[in-house]
Amino acid sequence: MSLEWIGDAETARGVTERRFDIERAGRTVPGVLWEPEARTPETPLVLLGHGGSGHKRQDYVLAVARRFARRGIAAAAIDGPVHGDRRAGGPSDGTAEMVEFSRMWRDDPAMTDQMVADWRAVLDALQAPDVLGAGPVGWWGLSMGTILGLPVVAAEPRISAAVLGLMGLTGPSKDRLRTDAALVTCALLFLVQWDDELFARDRAFDLFTEFGTTDKRLHANPGSHVQVPAEEFRASVAFLAKHLSVGTAREGQR
Amino acid sequence: MSLEWIGDAETARGVTERRFDIERAGRTVPGVLWEPEARTPETPLVLLGHGGSGHKRQDYVLAVARRFARRGIAAAAIDGPVHGDRRAGGPSDGTAEMVEFSRMWRDDPAMTDQMVADWRAVLDALQAPDVLGAGPVGWWGLSMGTILGLPVVAAEPRISAAVLGLMGLTGPSKDRLRTDAALVTCALLFLVQWDDELFARDRAFDLFTEFGTTDKRLHANPGSHVQVPAEEFRASVAFLAKHLSVGTAREGQR
Repeated sequence: MSLEWIGDAETARGVTERRFDIERAGRTVPGVLWEPEARTPETPLVLLGHGGSGHKRQDYVLAVARRFARRGIAAAAIDGPVHGDRRAGGPSDGTAEMVEFSRMWRDDPAMTDQMVADWRAVLDALQAPDVLGAGPVGWWGLSMGTILGLPVVAAEPRISAAVLGLMGLTGPSKDRLRTDAALVTCALLFLVQWDDELFARDRAFDLFTEFGTTDKRLHANPGSHVQVPAEEFRASVAFLAKHLSVGTAREGQR
Repeated sequence: MSLEWIGDAETARGVTERRFDIERAGRTVPGVLWEPEARTPETPLVLLGHGGSGHKRQDYVLAVARRFARRGIAAAAIDGPVHGDRRAGGPSDGTAEMVEFSRMWRDDPAMTDQMVADWRAVLDALQAPDVLGAGPVGWWGLSMGTILGLPVVAAEPRISAAVLGLMGLTGPSKDRLRTDAALVTCALLFLVQWDDELFARDRAFDLFTEFGTTDKRLHANPGSHVQVPAEEFRASVAFLAKHLSVGTAREGQR
């Protein structure tokens, strides 16, 4: 496993962004790291799982990452399978990604194991003493970021708080999601869109029931799959910031 | 209608508490007002509906009232029917209150109308220029505080934000709750206890669906009817504080 920085770091409004690649088991894992201006020896880190058809730097991932960084928390995102820089030529319009991901989700259960291994390699690399060090770790990922992220949260004892949601006990990996949900023991905020047209709220409620942790709460908002309100993005960032024990840094005005 | 202050005001840690009675249509409505130290010409006011078997000054009502007052927001509570000082001899152990309330809920639909009228009289009296003045108004009430409070929120255009919950589309006033829910147009936070043994979560979800306002969100937490976690009490106070436009006052450490 090796970490390679790609290009120069860029700093804007107190947030430093750096592209990286990690080589693992013959795969290249393309990622982005966002770092706060004020670093501590144990800067917390949030892993961001993007949504289906998006990529590691899609608008809402970037916005959430910057929010974390402005609260003194580093954030990292990698491209999902067949997404972003894992594609020859980079991100497409999203349609091809969704079609190809759906096929892999159905036909290739090892995809999930590979993504879990990718994320654990990223965490190992970023927690190196000369990068971030071994501070508290959180997970933030909705929809595909839960399909592929819930297994990461279940497998990774370093993750002490997670935001998941826009997903239910349904789809090709339903049984795995149920099994993994039972293994989650960390603090959890789970988001539901009341009128979700992709993953019905009743299935989301089923999944919420299965989480093994007692430190869980569910926030539901009206609207479709993509209509998560701004206040819930803010609340989810605040939730992880609180649980990763960053009490002093305050979010800037946006 | 007349407002009479009972006994002396008492101030502790920046919160002034005053007992009052309001005479309305031959009824005495016993209440408590909590006022912040720093008053403005239009101090916001939150109306607090207590739970079944409790009273206007039960522990969690008192705690919530003080939280509001420390954020610069006045709060008022009155006893529900057959509760608190509406009983000869004052509050009982709660059992008699529950039994008698359940009977009235079943047999006397006018009970709800009477409580709505009581609350509107309280609001009129407290918004007098020599008391609080006509600032923004919120509602906070769970369980019986929703059974009797949702009709108040539906009827009272002065209420611009509400916290309701621990209740569902069920019980003797189910049809009225559905009708009133559709009339709610203000900002709403609705609380659900995942393992509520009194009002099943599925019925709570039914009620949430019926609210007419699009500015609504649902927060669910594990546990029984009475196990609303401290963080949700805090969040519900913060929600109303935000919506009643009190941006400057910050809650003290508790």
